[in-house]
Amino acid sequence: MYSIFETEITVRPDDIDMNNHVHYSRYLDYILMARYDQMKKDYKVSMEEFVEQGYSWVASQVNIIYERPILLKDRVTVRTQLQSFQGAVAMVNFWIVKSDGGKLAAQGEVNYTMISIKSGRATRIPDEIIKKYQV
Amino acid sequence: MYSIFETEITVRPDDIDMNNHVHYSRYLDYILMARYDQMKKDYKVSMEEFVEQGYSWVASQVNIIYERPILLKDRVTVRTQLQSFQGAVAMVNFWIVKSDGGKLAAQGEVNYTMISIKSGRATRIPDEIIKKYQV
Amino acid sequence: MYSIFETEITVRPDDIDMNNHVHYSRYLDYILMARYDQMKKDYKVSMEEFVEQGYSWVASQVNIIYERPILLKDRVTVRTQLQSFQGAVAMVNFWIVKSDGGKLAAQGEVNYTMISIKSGRATRIPDEIIKKYQV
Amino acid sequence: MYSIFETEITVRPDDIDMNNHVHYSRYLDYILMARYDQMKKDYKVSMEEFVEQGYSWVASQVNIIYERPILLKDRVTVRTQLQSFQGAVAMVNFWIVKSDGGKLAAQGEVNYTMISIKSGRATRIPDEIIKKYQV
Repeated sequence: MYSIFETEITVRPDDIDMNNHVHYSRYLDYILMARYDQMKKDYKVSMEEFVEQGYSWVASQVNIIYERPILLKDRVTVRTQLQSFQGAVAMVNFWIVKSDGGKLAAQGEVNYTMISIKSGRATRIPDEIIKKYQV
Repeated sequence: MYSIFETEITVRPDDIDMNNHVHYSRYLDYILMARYDQMKKDYKVSMEEFVEQGYSWVASQVNIIYERPILLKDRVTVRTQLQSFQGAVAMVNFWIVKSDGGKLAAQGEVNYTMISIKSGRATRIPDEIIKKYQV
Repeated sequence: MYSIFETEITVRPDDIDMNNHVHYSRYLDYILMARYDQMKKDYKVSMEEFVEQGYSWVASQVNIIYERPILLKDRVTVRTQLQSFQGAVAMVNFWIVKSDGGKLAAQGEVNYTMISIKSGRATRIPDEIIKKYQV
Repeated sequence: MYSIFETEITVRPDDIDMNNHVHYSRYLDYILMARYDQMKKDYKVSMEEFVEQGYSWVASQVNIIYERPILLKDRVTVRTQLQSFQGAVAMVNFWIVKSDGGKLAAQGEVNYTMISIKSGRATRIPDEIIKKYQV
């Protein structure tokens, strides 16, 4: 079982759409923000270090269920948890909750595929990386 | 079987992220743009008309598979097709393809839930609306 | 002379464009975020309270000088200072600086026009509001 | 006197903010979209060609006056006109108008600074480039 890590996000006015809620595509930006933060803070391998070694991660699939609107006055917490590794793909579960009260705003999974920057192709995640993620 | 409708999208420079591709959350903005366009153009019931009648549509689930990066020089076509109706939910399949060559950039499904603007609650899609969508 | 207030902003990955810098339009989103924050935190009249009283603020002019790129790893601080009031318009100076080291990333002025939500028209800023801003 | 060129922009639902207007920072995205389009279409030197030659353009100053809100149903036309060249800087006037009726939504100027990609520094605009812009 992998740990659950979390990152708090401040909703910005430009995230709000004509329905007075956080726009549905901005949830994906919050998840990306949280993963970048947690790579550095929790896994101790920042995206920059991957890039220096010639690798990068791209989202290859997202499944998101919207449970509850997020308002401008809300602060939200994005929790993510590695689910499994398979070849070039890391599967990650996420939950976006309201920081006050903890109600669930959205949940789902993202698949991140590791790619070689040079070739642009998916590349098997090295064991040493998988080991770093055993936290 | 429901018809497949399509909308062409011009990639804007602000859609491009640090990987020199269209940012992964902007795909959801392209899908929304296409649905708005097709509601007016193909189903003949624009979002404005729903709002006037006290209804709106919100995305309640998105499943998207990213197949291929979209570049600034690309033009893309978003095809959508109603899959089914269930209570308050319309399930819609989508395909984002490159307008030149037709290669698939992404595909998936979105669930749209019809809500009453007054109550904010999900509301059963009226038969007259379902009928309008039989095109 | 009006006080200078400040708000710290976390750069998000979706703010970064193809030049690997914060996209030039996102600076305006940072300024808006800072003003919302400072309306609540420093002037003690949140945007929500204006809206409840039937008023809103819209940007009617922006002049921004970009001095230095902002990178993903940066944290930035947005400082704003009221310059003057004239009729319906509040003129505000801003400086966006890097939180580490304090180097200037951008500076300029924004004019905010107070509008009546009902009429959509510019409306003279009431003396009681101007008084609240004397901090 | 330099020519005025124009580009039509389709407003997307994600451009609309909580005030039901195009968000104020998105105007800058429309201007950038127009300049990219016009570099290719009208000046016959696309941004990609600049980059291949080791150069790029960055916005170094924007002055924008918001005249009238843009709504989701609007189509807008962005007109731009070179005003002058000075060292590394091209000064460009712009007007954003509603395609139907031609009412002015915004106007202003952008300064674009030519930079060497290698050094990141401002670089004097070569005469051959200035010549290409004499259209």
